[in-house]
Amino acid sequence: MFRLWGRAVIFLYTDFGAEGPYLAQVRAVLAAESPGTPVFNLLSNAPSADPRRAAYLLAALVSELPANAIVLGVVDPGVGGERLPVVVEAGGRRFVGPDNGLFSRAAARDPGARAWRIDWRPARLSASFHGRDLFAPVAARLAAGVDVPLTEVPLSQLAGSEWPDELSEVVYADVYGNLLTGLRGDGLSDSAVLEAGGRRLRYARTFSAVPAGEAFWYRNSCGLIEIAVNGGSARERLGLGVGAIVRSSQ
Amino acid sequence: MFRLWGRAVIFLYTDFGAEGPYLAQVRAVLAAESPGTPVFNLLSNAPSADPRRAAYLLAALVSELPANAIVLGVVDPGVGGERLPVVVEAGGRRFVGPDNGLFSRAAARDPGARAWRIDWRPARLSASFHGRDLFAPVAARLAAGVDVPLTEVPLSQLAGSEWPDELSEVVYADVYGNLLTGLRGDGLSDSAVLEAGGRRLRYARTFSAVPAGEAFWYRNSCGLIEIAVNGGSARERLGLGVGAIVRSSQ
Amino acid sequence: MFRLWGRAVIFLYTDFGAEGPYLAQVRAVLAAESPGTPVFNLLSNAPSADPRRAAYLLAALVSELPANAIVLGVVDPGVGGERLPVVVEAGGRRFVGPDNGLFSRAAARDPGARAWRIDWRPARLSASFHGRDLFAPVAARLAAGVDVPLTEVPLSQLAGSEWPDELSEVVYADVYGNLLTGLRGDGLSDSAVLEAGGRRLRYARTFSAVPAGEAFWYRNSCGLIEIAVNGGSARERLGLGVGAIVRSSQ
Repeated sequence: MFRLWGRAVIFLYTDFGAEGPYLAQVRAVLAAESPGTPVFNLLSNAPSADPRRAAYLLAALVSELPANAIVLGVVDPGVGGERLPVVVEAGGRRFVGPDNGLFSRAAARDPGARAWRIDWRPARLSASFHGRDLFAPVAARLAAGVDVPLTEVPLSQLAGSEWPDELSEVVYADVYGNLLTGLRGDGLSDSAVLEAGGRRLRYARTFSAVPAGEAFWYRNSCGLIEIAVNGGSARERLGLGVGAIVRSSQ
Repeated sequence: MFRLWGRAVIFLYTDFGAEGPYLAQVRAVLAAESPGTPVFNLLSNAPSADPRRAAYLLAALVSELPANAIVLGVVDPGVGGERLPVVVEAGGRRFVGPDNGLFSRAAARDPGARAWRIDWRPARLSASFHGRDLFAPVAARLAAGVDVPLTEVPLSQLAGSEWPDELSEVVYADVYGNLLTGLRGDGLSDSAVLEAGGRRLRYARTFSAVPAGEAFWYRNSCGLIEIAVNGGSARERLGLGVGAIVRSSQ
Repeated sequence: MFRLWGRAVIFLYTDFGAEGPYLAQVRAVLAAESPGTPVFNLLSNAPSADPRRAAYLLAALVSELPANAIVLGVVDPGVGGERLPVVVEAGGRRFVGPDNGLFSRAAARDPGARAWRIDWRPARLSASFHGRDLFAPVAARLAAGVDVPLTEVPLSQLAGSEWPDELSEVVYADVYGNLLTGLRGDGLSDSAVLEAGGRRLRYARTFSAVPAGEAFWYRNSCGLIEIAVNGGSARERLGLGVGAIVRSSQ
């Protein structure tokens, strides 16, 4: 859908929040290392410390990004030890971040996807902010066309490579209370019924196709199955949130 | 108040929230279609699905924007059927978005305002994200000086053309809990008393002119009557929110 | 850590929130008065109306900013009368905003820091939005290298000059519920014990060094002592927020 840029564009996919001090520090590094490269906050409230659910949402959202996009993705588990810093290439786009499965679903959708371990390390590496100290400089260098020391690794060795192609759960609730699932829109026919929270939901193409206050499912603008309520919040009306199980029957 | 830019500047006026995935998708389209055009998030938490109240706030805020501003406004009702996509020109500024009244108050303040139906359609138009698929490309083309197929329509045919000039309600609560009304600051004299939530509020020029903890009304920085509490939140102190009725007596 | 830009970069440090109408109005002025200057939202949820705590956080965060940074800082008390508008220079960086102590801690860390009263006034100065009307044009002019009428004043006359070097309190809670204190990371040895909310917390270098669910303290990525919980929110787990007292014992 996009006209291609002549140069790279960077998208930030994080759980940093929009108001706190983390995004600006990352953006300042990007601006210093790759001046003039456009940078967008693709998502600032990714499922917190939840790379698995974040991976399904990211795979859908990147389908809407230009082919020369570089995604700087940081959704850290907080717990756990050292994660390998990696670069993944899938669908022509490049992903920079930790090897915790975050990029695995995007990679799984391109048979030609490849992955590399990042061998470069900055002069100073804080214990808690690799997004700023390691991933941002690497993303900036990729954007600027500067060589970064990388070693290719098999995709099958990356975290999340064994995760299923779809996730029958709510992976994200948006600002309107719409519930995005990890199910792909092209996987269900219009006659399918979705079960969630003990409710059976039917398909509608748009909000206005159902009466006000009624819950339904539809194919959203990034290709996922989404649960919504016309004129209301599905999260509140159905009492469901991230992690809620969703089942479909044709 | 502003020095004019030589080129257009785009302001986004939405209820998308700052953290979710919608703003970046719109901004990416704008950057692809009109590279180098400055883009600002004028408001990301406009009254949700409430184009009427959002219209009064927008009309006030645009008075602070440069004369070459293009406002991409998306505050959708969620309910309801097809809205005509429109371009409105008022005060030299251009507005792009749905014909649901959102631009009607800005238009009403310029006797020379004009409106057009957008005849252009993108190759792909999702059912739920016209902000990205339709309005963003149109705003970008206007910014870039690219011709967009438009058909002029009478302003009187646009939604909201019959709405009153002022709205005696709270239309927005800001991050401090200040309550912005749909009343214009120049419509009341300093001796006027404002009634809201059973309280009678007097005028003060600034916060520091009243004792700490006291509620008052003042003319805010975009020309609206605003209810505030010195050193506190008017929303919490008065227990009022968006939609609360406000009455004035001289 | 940063490569220097050839020109200035502006960082906004405010309590404006990310979604409301204030940031864009400031950014529009900056773009009009100093086109092309990069602008970043360093923080949009600074401790509200609390320049004292905001000052300790700012002093830490600026250590991560490039040396040619201009910080436009607006954290207003809401109460109180006229504050002198000032420019402070410390560590090579410049700060523009009200003389309410917000820049005092950054200034205290540079023996060569200097301060000036801003003598320039805009043609229009609203009563409530000096960030847009006064500080933004001044920051833009400094960024653009345009002369601004200033009168030097002794740093000792500025608000906050007598505040202590460190603050034994929580000054900010981030999106993850981590509690940032006003204590400097290099002021405590690894064997120090931190007391907060009746709990005794030990040092760990990283989250993963303690069991899941356990609270600890560590030196964060901007050099402050921070209280965290591995895999959880310290704010919720300890029931502490901004202003909570913290005590250390070696």
